[in-house]
Parts: sequence; C-alpha cells; structure tokens
Amino acid sequence: ENISVGQYDLIYNAFSFAFATLAAATIFFWLGRSQVAPQYKTAMTITGLVTFIAAYHYFRIFESWEAAFNVADGTITATGYAFNRAYRYVDWLLTVPLLLVELILVMGLSRSETVSRATRLGLLAALMIVLGYPGEVATTNGARWLWGSLSMIPFLWIVYELFVGLSKSIAAQPEDARGLVSTARYVVVGSWAFYPIVYFAGAVGLDGGAAATVVEVGYTVADITAKAVFGVLIFLIAQRKSVAYF
Amino acid sequence: ENISVGQYDLIYNAFSFAFATLAAATIFFWLGRSQVAPQYKTAMTITGLVTFIAAYHYFRIFESWEAAFNVADGTITATGYAFNRAYRYVDWLLTVPLLLVELILVMGLSRSETVSRATRLGLLAALMIVLGYPGEVATTNGARWLWGSLSMIPFLWIVYELFVGLSKSIAAQPEDARGLVSTARYVVVGSWAFYPIVYFAGAVGLDGGAAATVVEVGYTVADITAKAVFGVLIFLIAQRKSVAYF
Ligand SMILES: CC1=C(/C=C/C(C)=C/C=C/C(C)=C/C=O)C(C)(C)CCC1
Ligand SMILES: CC1=C(/C=C/C(C)=C/C=C/C(C)=C/C=O)C(C)(C)CCC1
Repeated sequence: ENISVGQYDLIYNAFSFAFATLAAATIFFWLGRSQVAPQYKTAMTITGLVTFIAAYHYFRIFESWEAAFNVADGTITATGYAFNRAYRYVDWLLTVPLLLVELILVMGLSRSETVSRATRLGLLAALMIVLGYPGEVATTNGARWLWGSLSMIPFLWIVYELFVGLSKSIAAQPEDARGLVSTARYVVVGSWAFYPIVYFAGAVGLDGGAAATVVEVGYTVADITAKAVFGVLIFLIAQRKSVAYF
Repeated sequence: ENISVGQYDLIYNAFSFAFATLAAATIFFWLGRSQVAPQYKTAMTITGLVTFIAAYHYFRIFESWEAAFNVADGTITATGYAFNRAYRYVDWLLTVPLLLVELILVMGLSRSETVSRATRLGLLAALMIVLGYPGEVATTNGARWLWGSLSMIPFLWIVYELFVGLSKSIAAQPEDARGLVSTARYVVVGSWAFYPIVYFAGAVGLDGGAAATVVEVGYTVADITAKAVFGVLIFLIAQRKSVAYF
C-alpha cells in the first residue's frame, strides 16, 4: 500500500476519535438507565454495551494500525505486521444483532413478539456478517463477489423486516414517540447501506492509500452513526415513553 | 505445531471476541441486578462474576497466544514461549462451581435445599476439574485416559443431579419460568458435553494446526455459551420471577 503520512495521520486520528466518541456514548447510555421506566432499562443497557464493545475494538484497531506502520522524520514505512481488518467483523458479529435487539426492545412489543422478532433479526444479522467475512479476507475477486452477494440476502431481508414487518408496530407506538421510532429505522438502513457499498468498492479493484482512507474513515463515520447517533435516538424514545412513569 | 497464518488469526480473533463478549456480559449482568427482586440479586452478582473471571482469563490467554508466535510479512514463527493451556483450568476451577450455584440460586429453593444442593454440585464440579488437570498436562496417552476417565465420574454425577435430582424442583417453578429453567439445564448439559469431547479428541492423537483451531475455537464457543448465553437465561428467569415484586 502506498499510503502518505497525511493519509496515515487522518486514519490514525479517526480511530482515536471513534474510541473517544464510543467510550463517552457508553457512559451516557448507562447513566441514562436511571432516567427511563423499568421496561426500557434493558434497552439502555444493551445500547451502552454496543458502544462499549465498539470502543474496545476501536482501541485494538488503533493499536493494530500503529503497529503496522512506522512514521519517523516525515517518512512512512510498513513494519511488516499486518493491520488486522478482521476486528471490524468480530465487532459486527456482536454489535449488529444487539443493535436490532435494542430497537425491538424500545418498541415495547408483547413478550412473544419481542422474542420472535429479536431472534429472527438477530440471527439474520449474524448470518449476514458470517457470510461477508470469507469474502473480506478472500484473495480473489470472484470469492469477494460470491460471499458478498450471499451476504446481501440476509441484508435485504432485514431491510424488508424493518420496513414492512415492523410498520404495524410503528403505527401502534404512542403519538409522541412514533416519529422518532420511524427515524430510528431510517438511521439504521441509511447507515447500514454504507457497508456493502464500501465492500463492493473493494471488489471493483479500488486500492492504495486513497482507497484505504475512504474505507477506514468511511467505516468509522458509519459506525459512529449506527451506534452512537442511533443510541441517542433509542434513549430519546425510551425517555418519551417513560413520561407517565415518573 | 504447524499452524498457518489464517489459523493463527482465526484463533486470535476468537480470543479477542471472547474477551469482548464476556466483558460486555459482565456489565449486562451487574446492571441487571437492579431489575430483579432482592432474593435474586446474589444470582445476578455471581452470573457477572463468572463472566468477569472468564474475561480476565481470556485477556491472559490472548496475551499468551500473542507471545507464542511472531507474524511478520505474512509468515509465522514460534517465538519459543509456550502458550499456557492451564489458564482454562484455573478459570474452570472457579467458574464451573459458580455456574451451578447460580442455577440453584435462581430456582429459589428452600434455604436448606439451596445449601445442600449448591454444596454438593459445587464440590463435584471442582473435583471434575481437579481430576482432569493432570490428564491435560500429562505427556503419555495412558495418563490422559486415566485422569480423564476419573473426571468423567463427577461429570456424569452432575448430569444425573441436574436431570433427576432437580426435576421435582423444576415442576415446582412458577408456570411462567418453568420452560426457561428447563432450557437452562439443557444449555448446561449441551455446552458442557463439548469439553470432554475435545479432551478425548486430544487423547486419540489429534494434533497440528487444524486440531489447535478446533480445540481453541471450540472451547471458546462452548465457554461463551456456558457462561454468557446461560447467564442471559438466568437473568430472564430472575426477571420473570420478580414481576410480582415491582
Ligand atoms: C450486506 C453486506 C455486508 C453488510 C454489512 C453491514 C450491514 C454491516 C453493518 C455494520 C454495523 C451496523 C456496524 C456497527 O454499527 C458486508 C458484511 C460488508 C459484506 C457485503 C454484503
Ligand atoms: C468430563 C471431563 C472434563 C470436563 C470438563 C468440563 C465439563 C468443563 C466445563 C467447563 C465450563 C462449563 C466452563 C465455563 O463455562 C475435562 C476436565 C475436560 C477432563 C475430561 C473429562
């Protein structure tokens, strides 16, 4: 990879920014538990777990990035240690199902609907990540397209579930929270759409320092949106629905 | 050991994944203490202790794994430092008795039954681990079989206790929680059965990089199931049985 010092620094700072944002978001969500009614506490716990897990991984990603390059006297050289791209997948395997669970929990559906929807969406999300992984580490473009396309199936199914499957439940939300719940859905789909775009950009042969910058900074922005910004929406929804309780 | 970079990475990522999952689970369980009735708070505390202890050990296992191999420019060499397999036994000696105590506590039996069952199951579990250890570190296959077989005795006794000894107590659980308590039992037996299988796979001479991958990734999946997934069940049981309290 022909990466410039400026590109290296930008990515380095983006990782550090993500760590700080996600760690701060974690504390915000856990402290927020005391401001919502009992039935929404688990949603807040999980919202904070997602950012906690992601903060941990950004810390590791940051360290891996630091170990992969040596910057001295204004020149950059690869150290030979590979930057571990897999941390993102390890992170997603845990956090993406939890993100969907947190959305379901804050909707306050019946127990059986909560269990069935959370299980289905959680498993679909895990499947999507597991199918994407072999494509990400593959060395041929054919394998990248194959696994990526397979991963698109659960992805599209999730989008369908969120828009068609959940629309009745959204109509049943209290007036006050309905708009926010609907927005939360759009934030999910909008930020998630970014990931396959970046993935397939790699499959059409984008490479080099500029591509690495787009990919790493892009994923970082998407992660912060899908986890911290989305989490703030979850908090606002839970808080509005808790008004009667306090 | 002839381990490939791909196998090394997979194990590396599995250890990091386990650390993140168990650390996140710990916080989930401890925050969950405020969502259960007072008589179930100890069960939640212990559930979190189990994942906390395991997260600590996975951190050490991860570091031990990192120190044992050197990966640079796509090639892998052993550094000469041995990967410490004993961490798992140290972990189990503490966590396996606690796991059984946590199951007994959430059942809400009478005080005398709680003490007698928790003591018996806890001691049997400790005995099982202590008997397995000399076999794990043995250099001859004979010793491996001998200690492994001795360790099977308390193992089978525990399974018997869970299925026969506890069945009357399960019938006495509130309607609402009965199914979950029964599921928790199956999760214990299903995930625990994995450990002796892996152990005896070593005794029939499985070796090399592929075997190491199966053993390490397999134990990791089993640990996450036996501790974090099982813990979520304990939380759900405690929460259902606490409905009347709130
Ligand atoms: C569809 C698809 C993918 C989708 C990934 C997604 C949707 C990831 C979402 C991550 C989130 C939301 C992270 C944290 O907030 C992959 C795996 C790139 C592989 C190519 C096909
Ligand atoms: C029967 C048997 C064993 C059983 C081990 C078990 C059952 C371990 C359980 C560990 C758990 C549940 C860990 C954490 O969650 C050994 C010691 C491998 C030795 C061979 C015979």
